[in-house]
Amino acid sequence: MTRAQTPKPQPEAPRRRGLMLILSSPSGAGKSTLTRALKEDNRQDLLLSISVTTREKRPSEVNNVHYTFISEADFGVMRDRGELIEWAEVHGNFYGTPLKPIEAALAAGQDVLFDIDYQGTRQIVQRMRADTVTVFILPPSMAELKNRLDRRAEDSDAVIAKRLTNARTEIARWVDYDYVLINDNLDRTYDELRSILAAERLKRERQTGLGAFVDALLAEG
Amino acid sequence: MTRAQTPKPQPEAPRRRGLMLILSSPSGAGKSTLTRALKEDNRQDLLLSISVTTREKRPSEVNNVHYTFISEADFGVMRDRGELIEWAEVHGNFYGTPLKPIEAALAAGQDVLFDIDYQGTRQIVQRMRADTVTVFILPPSMAELKNRLDRRAEDSDAVIAKRLTNARTEIARWVDYDYVLINDNLDRTYDELRSILAAERLKRERQTGLGAFVDALLAEG
Repeated sequence: MTRAQTPKPQPEAPRRRGLMLILSSPSGAGKSTLTRALKEDNRQDLLLSISVTTREKRPSEVNNVHYTFISEADFGVMRDRGELIEWAEVHGNFYGTPLKPIEAALAAGQDVLFDIDYQGTRQIVQRMRADTVTVFILPPSMAELKNRLDRRAEDSDAVIAKRLTNARTEIARWVDYDYVLINDNLDRTYDELRSILAAERLKRERQTGLGAFVDALLAEG
Repeated sequence: MTRAQTPKPQPEAPRRRGLMLILSSPSGAGKSTLTRALKEDNRQDLLLSISVTTREKRPSEVNNVHYTFISEADFGVMRDRGELIEWAEVHGNFYGTPLKPIEAALAAGQDVLFDIDYQGTRQIVQRMRADTVTVFILPPSMAELKNRLDRRAEDSDAVIAKRLTNARTEIARWVDYDYVLINDNLDRTYDELRSILAAERLKRERQTGLGAFVDALLAEG
C-alpha cells in the first residue's frame, strides 16, 4: 500500500520590517554608481527616498522623481509639524525628507535607500535608530578621489578643488557610521554592500513575523 | 615629455579585530553542515573553538582536535581563575571554552566559530558582547526536523524523541540571538550565513586600523 506523500511545508518568509540603508561618502568615492546598482538589483523591495525641495526645478528634472518640488510655505508647514525626518538649508534653498512615505514603506517590509551627507544621516539616526543602517564609503586615497573627479570632466578646476575640501570634512565623519567600506575595487565594494543589506534584513528585531512563525512551529504535532 | 605614471596606491585592508560567530540550533536543523562549509571556505581566518572537557576520550576522538581532554582538577582551576568564557556540566562531565586562545585569535584579526547551545551563548555574550555575533538556525517545520533526524539513521527512536523535546526548549531561545535564519534551503541559508560574516567584518568598530588609514588619507597632498 502506498501513501500519498505529505507535501513538504514551504513556509513563506516571515513578515519583516523594512530598514533605511543610508550611504554617505565624499563626492567621487563611487556612491552614485553603487546606489544605482543596488536599486537595479532590488527593484521591488528597495525604494529610493525622494526629497522635497524649495529650489526651482531644472529643465532636466522630473517632479516626484528627482525631487518633489514644493513652496517655501509648504516646506515650513511640513518641517514645523515634524513631517520631515531630516532637512537642511543649502544656498538659501531648503531640502528635506518626508517621513510618511518612508514609514509606509518600512511597515510594508520595503527598504529605503538614502544617498545623503553626514548631517542628514545624523538627524535620521537620532530619530529612528533601530530602523537605520549607515554605511560610509571611503576612497582608497585622496589622489584617487581627485583622479575620479578629474575623469568625470564635468566640473571646473575650482569646483573640483571645492569638492576635495568638502571631501575632507565629510571623510572625518566616518566615525559616526555602522559600517565603513574602502572603495578600491567597485565590484568588491558592491559585494560588501550587498552582504550588509542581506545581513541586516536577517536581524531578529526586523523579522516581525518570526514570533508567529515559531509559535506555529512549536504548536505542530 | 612623458612622465612616469604614479603607481596607484593599493592600501592593504586596515587591521581589524576578529569576531566570535556563534551558531545555535536544535539538533537536525543543519548547523553542523553549515559550520563545516563555513570553515572550509575560511581556512585561514576562521578558527573553530576547541572546548576542554573532563569526560573520557572516545577512541575516534583526537586530543586538541575534537576536545582538549583535561582532569577535573585542572578544569576546576581554569574555571575558578576565570579562564573559561563559558562552561557547563552535562551528565557529570564538565565542558568549557578557554578564553586565552580566543583572545589571541581576536587580537590577531581572526574570527572564531562556535557551535554551542543557548546556555553557552548567553555566558559568552554576557562577558564579551562587542565581540560576539549570534545566529540562530530554525528548521522550516518540526516535521522536517524529525525527517532529518530520521534520515540520519544514527539514533534510536527514543533518542530521536528526546532530541525533539530538547529542540523545543532550544527553539524557544531564538529571542536571544542577533540573527535568525530559517533553514528550508541549505544553499540559501549558507549564503545568508556568509553575508552575515562578511557584513560583521565590515563593522566600523571592528576595523581597528581604520583610524590610522583615515589619518594617512587626510595627511595626503
